[in-house]
Amino acid sequence: MSLNGHGPERRDLRIAEMIVTPVACPDPPLLNHHGVHEPTFLRAIVRLRTADGLEGLGEGPGGGLFVQELRAAAKHVIGADPYQLERLRVLIGRTPRVFSAVESACLDLVGKATGRPVYELLGGPVRRRVPFAAYLFYKEEGDDDWGAALDPESLVRQAERFHERYGMTVFKLKAGVLDPWEECATMRLLRERFGPKAGLRIDPNAAWSVETSLRVAERLRDLDLEYLEDPTAGIEGMAEVAKRTPIPLSTNMCVTSFSHVASAYRAGAVQVVLGDHHGWGGLTAFRELGVVCKTLHWGLSQHSNSHLGISFAAMIHAGAAIPNLIYASDTHYPWNPADIVNETERFTFRDGAIEIWDAPGLGVTIDEDKLAAAAEAYERRGSSLARDDVGAMRERNPDFLPLIPKW
Amino acid sequence: MSLNGHGPERRDLRIAEMIVTPVACPDPPLLNHHGVHEPTFLRAIVRLRTADGLEGLGEGPGGGLFVQELRAAAKHVIGADPYQLERLRVLIGRTPRVFSAVESACLDLVGKATGRPVYELLGGPVRRRVPFAAYLFYKEEGDDDWGAALDPESLVRQAERFHERYGMTVFKLKAGVLDPWEECATMRLLRERFGPKAGLRIDPNAAWSVETSLRVAERLRDLDLEYLEDPTAGIEGMAEVAKRTPIPLSTNMCVTSFSHVASAYRAGAVQVVLGDHHGWGGLTAFRELGVVCKTLHWGLSQHSNSHLGISFAAMIHAGAAIPNLIYASDTHYPWNPADIVNETERFTFRDGAIEIWDAPGLGVTIDEDKLAAAAEAYERRGSSLARDDVGAMRERNPDFLPLIPKW
Repeated sequence: MSLNGHGPERRDLRIAEMIVTPVACPDPPLLNHHGVHEPTFLRAIVRLRTADGLEGLGEGPGGGLFVQELRAAAKHVIGADPYQLERLRVLIGRTPRVFSAVESACLDLVGKATGRPVYELLGGPVRRRVPFAAYLFYKEEGDDDWGAALDPESLVRQAERFHERYGMTVFKLKAGVLDPWEECATMRLLRERFGPKAGLRIDPNAAWSVETSLRVAERLRDLDLEYLEDPTAGIEGMAEVAKRTPIPLSTNMCVTSFSHVASAYRAGAVQVVLGDHHGWGGLTAFRELGVVCKTLHWGLSQHSNSHLGISFAAMIHAGAAIPNLIYASDTHYPWNPADIVNETERFTFRDGAIEIWDAPGLGVTIDEDKLAAAAEAYERRGSSLARDDVGAMRERNPDFLPLIPKW
Repeated sequence: MSLNGHGPERRDLRIAEMIVTPVACPDPPLLNHHGVHEPTFLRAIVRLRTADGLEGLGEGPGGGLFVQELRAAAKHVIGADPYQLERLRVLIGRTPRVFSAVESACLDLVGKATGRPVYELLGGPVRRRVPFAAYLFYKEEGDDDWGAALDPESLVRQAERFHERYGMTVFKLKAGVLDPWEECATMRLLRERFGPKAGLRIDPNAAWSVETSLRVAERLRDLDLEYLEDPTAGIEGMAEVAKRTPIPLSTNMCVTSFSHVASAYRAGAVQVVLGDHHGWGGLTAFRELGVVCKTLHWGLSQHSNSHLGISFAAMIHAGAAIPNLIYASDTHYPWNPADIVNETERFTFRDGAIEIWDAPGLGVTIDEDKLAAAAEAYERRGSSLARDDVGAMRERNPDFLPLIPKW
């Protein structure tokens, strides 16, 4: 096809091969309401290859069931054109995390074929520095150099280290672990330590009743939180809390798909949604969530689960391209001792932010040795079940139960 | 940049030149609540060129003010990269129709540079045949071969002609012209003539009061309308009607931007939004409107104003790519005696639908002679003001006033 002599042939990008590699990666013993992170977290790496050997990368949650679903999607993926995402979304979008891993690899392919970074395929960058929050966890002593953090003071030392190493000035506490009043004391110490400009968030994963949530909100009222994330369970519970506190409520638990939006809006359940490309069905869907949030006058923030560099690159592209993503994004990445991509130097935080790069696609490539080692670690793990924080905690304390509400 | 030896250089697509050409094109004397179409309708054609001569096309409403705004946008457009749409949206998006014309030309450029049709840049086609509705107008006798249509019987003959020529089986009546009871009689005749499977819509452009709207709705209740479009003015007025009729209400008047959505949703004002790439701020924004509508359980249809082939191509690409655009789209195109693009054979209706094509970008090119003639017609027109249906009607009847409500 020639246009004024300038147009190229339409390049055949149809997907000829789909390789799914489940991996296990070291994880510190981070605590949350559900228990404790197991020694490894699981991910699945997707590689889509065209007939002429161009490769696109995707990453999603791990565990045998997800890997099975991902492999089952291959019958729709093989032969598909990576530009034609909507038909793939319809065919495999029933499982948004499966579609997301495939979509990421498709966008990586298109980016590489056109010499364009993924953020340009999402509308282009509106910011070149993508800010991240320090994700603070109460934790046990582990095979890491972070040490234990089981009370307010040691948690603040962890935050100081995040600030010193990465320049972060926004802090999110994973709560629902200690007694709520100790967690409130932790928040107060953080405010005292980092001053009035620091961004503060607390997220007990719905471990509190409505009444406890309201008492916590009162206790934290003068701390100028960015938001209180999922204090309690469910749209109606959140709405009861939202009615009676001026602190913005955020969620990645009661609004986790487009189908929850209308009810949550009518109920007045939340003010901020934490989206992500994994759970919402791809980078394009996360971008669309941004439009929905803006339209409903909701804020938008970015949620994280334990992840490797392919997902991190995608999160950074999203952060650069989604206009109303003005909150610093969550990421578990600093907790990882290792990665399976080569370009880890891209993930250098300066003043808490990561600068985007100009490489085509996602801008990361596989370190084959590291991938092979992580795949071997998955096989060695002996079980293909997903991460089980509850089980890991019950090995320490057979009576442990992640009650909702717990307080 | 080489990736496994397969990646291309990033091609420089920065915009070096922006040419805006206002045009005037013949228009039949179609009637509406505001008056009558003038003998010409105005459009503005945008051509964006890269340094190496690739050209992207856009089209927007005409008239001097719009042309001035479009030309004023050049300072942001020149030097911009056509992939980086979000920053252009922020810089010139205050006037969505200006951004839309530029965005269309940017997508045309990207499509030509990659050998991909615009619908692939919007997520890929979910349908290859894009259905359109016959846009029925009461009209005067004119310089066209359609004849006058000033009562129910002649309007139904017009519909028969649409059906015979184009195979259309969905009919939209532009109402607000005759007494509402005559317009109801027209709808009943259409249902009798085309049987129970035909799609029927009526749109008086908010010419009716709430009470008249409800009486009309009762009179049309057994006709199984697809929707009743803008019977009355404003979100609150529409909500009053919506409460008391089972006929779905649609709008392109009370919800015309994302900022109207939240209030309209809370009020329960509408069930279907007619969006379009012109008014909503580009093809990407229209696609996003689709996500918002789906999220709020609203239907989505496509609105039309008088337009030429560049806009029509864009509307067809949108129709192919937006998943929940399941209503037949509106178009004024069959009313045009002429166009300024070469590829008019693409716009051949079969069974009321247009089949998408595989050409890169929008898939249309300028017929330079026809463009020059239409530009000359604009200059000859003597006024740069936008189309004035009210003024044209007041030349016929000096007492004409487009009252809202009129009935």
